[in-house]
Amino acid sequence: MSVHQTGLRVRYAETDQMGVVYYANYLVWMEVARVEFCKSVGFSYEQMEREDGILLAVAEVHCRYLYPARFDQEVTIHTSLADAHPRMVRFAYEMRLGEDGRKLAIGETKHVFCGRDLRPTRLPEKYHRNFGIG
Amino acid sequence: MSVHQTGLRVRYAETDQMGVVYYANYLVWMEVARVEFCKSVGFSYEQMEREDGILLAVAEVHCRYLYPARFDQEVTIHTSLADAHPRMVRFAYEMRLGEDGRKLAIGETKHVFCGRDLRPTRLPEKYHRNFGIG
Amino acid sequence: MSVHQTGLRVRYAETDQMGVVYYANYLVWMEVARVEFCKSVGFSYEQMEREDGILLAVAEVHCRYLYPARFDQEVTIHTSLADAHPRMVRFAYEMRLGEDGRKLAIGETKHVFCGRDLRPTRLPEKYHRNFGIG
Amino acid sequence: MSVHQTGLRVRYAETDQMGVVYYANYLVWMEVARVEFCKSVGFSYEQMEREDGILLAVAEVHCRYLYPARFDQEVTIHTSLADAHPRMVRFAYEMRLGEDGRKLAIGETKHVFCGRDLRPTRLPEKYHRNFGIG
Repeated sequence: MSVHQTGLRVRYAETDQMGVVYYANYLVWMEVARVEFCKSVGFSYEQMEREDGILLAVAEVHCRYLYPARFDQEVTIHTSLADAHPRMVRFAYEMRLGEDGRKLAIGETKHVFCGRDLRPTRLPEKYHRNFGIG
Repeated sequence: MSVHQTGLRVRYAETDQMGVVYYANYLVWMEVARVEFCKSVGFSYEQMEREDGILLAVAEVHCRYLYPARFDQEVTIHTSLADAHPRMVRFAYEMRLGEDGRKLAIGETKHVFCGRDLRPTRLPEKYHRNFGIG
Repeated sequence: MSVHQTGLRVRYAETDQMGVVYYANYLVWMEVARVEFCKSVGFSYEQMEREDGILLAVAEVHCRYLYPARFDQEVTIHTSLADAHPRMVRFAYEMRLGEDGRKLAIGETKHVFCGRDLRPTRLPEKYHRNFGIG
Repeated sequence: MSVHQTGLRVRYAETDQMGVVYYANYLVWMEVARVEFCKSVGFSYEQMEREDGILLAVAEVHCRYLYPARFDQEVTIHTSLADAHPRMVRFAYEMRLGEDGRKLAIGETKHVFCGRDLRPTRLPEKYHRNFGIG
């Protein structure tokens, strides 16, 4: 599967008093990377949610923190599709410092396709090829 | 008008690398205090939004930061209604350290009543007395 | 080991456009619960960080989301010590709706004791019994 | 004075259950824009904080919300220096939708130069010309 690369810069708001990025913010970065990944394989998450009423509810997240990121550093996130079915999808993430490629964290998220009522549903067929299903 | 008092404790997540609470988080505290204020005058913001489809969109915020709050400190927020009409409402906030009453910040928010479409609307009459509109 | 129970109420800020709590905020709740757990076993995280220069850097997090939490709901977090050594500690969390006890999420965090320079260190002996070490 | 333009894209994390960007996040955007503005006039906020121990503590913020921003929209922030003295600086912000230039919000922040102890200090002379002081 394809790997998509997203860049972002650490915001002051994302640091904590330890002087490094607060751990929950890596999950926000995963979301940013995930949205961009989806665009890179040809579909808009925003559109799927608005037009088809399909949401990607997070079912599980895992993250290992290897090296702390700091304010104003550039971070590169490599996102790939780890698994995809009509009912769920898993993404894998690798976060690195832009400057020297040092690995900051690795993570994974698992998502379930849901309707607006947040009940599990199936991904519409028209999106299957975007996720390599089928 | 009544003044409502809300207490909260500073979360690690709310600090930044300056070692104090990041400035945007005071607005989150105002929201927490506002929601509790509404309950104290007899109505549930959550219910109004869910049952009547009335939202309180923020139109304006102002905050003066007087003294920095730090991790794990108790903060007390005094909230009062500064103004209320069927179309808008203004709240005033005073944030103090729980420990010694030192003033941390003062703020104000102005809100417009909106429907789900985010267009301005009028507060239903049944809620008028909660806001002292009369 | 002891289990500590922490209560909090969902903030509007913690929701996202799906109408439920954004997934990264569960990690903030884990932090709130962890800090309270530490107090319940007799020591202050804030003090350890300030006086001894010992930080609890997060090394790993895992969270499974079972049921979505919504604005203004009360959430109860049961926190326990899953493992503790002089170099690291693991906490386990179970988050439930206050109203009916419905399980919202389960999670785990692993932490490494660090000095101010963020290099791994050993937990000072005086704190060992708080964590049931040795 | 110069006006600097910063672009960003609305994150899912920044929305709330109203379906629009939560109001406190505009202050995070101001910070992002402010940091970029500083770079554009030739100095690094990160470096000043790390090397000179000079912090820009926020003393006051004001924001007027004109139109709601939504997930995945591009936002453009125009930042300018409203005022600058050796002891304080004020920034003005104008936030617009990237797509059609619609004005989302206008804001202002006032900052006081502080040392690491968070006591007011003077901006070192070497930075004066960056802020047009003198």
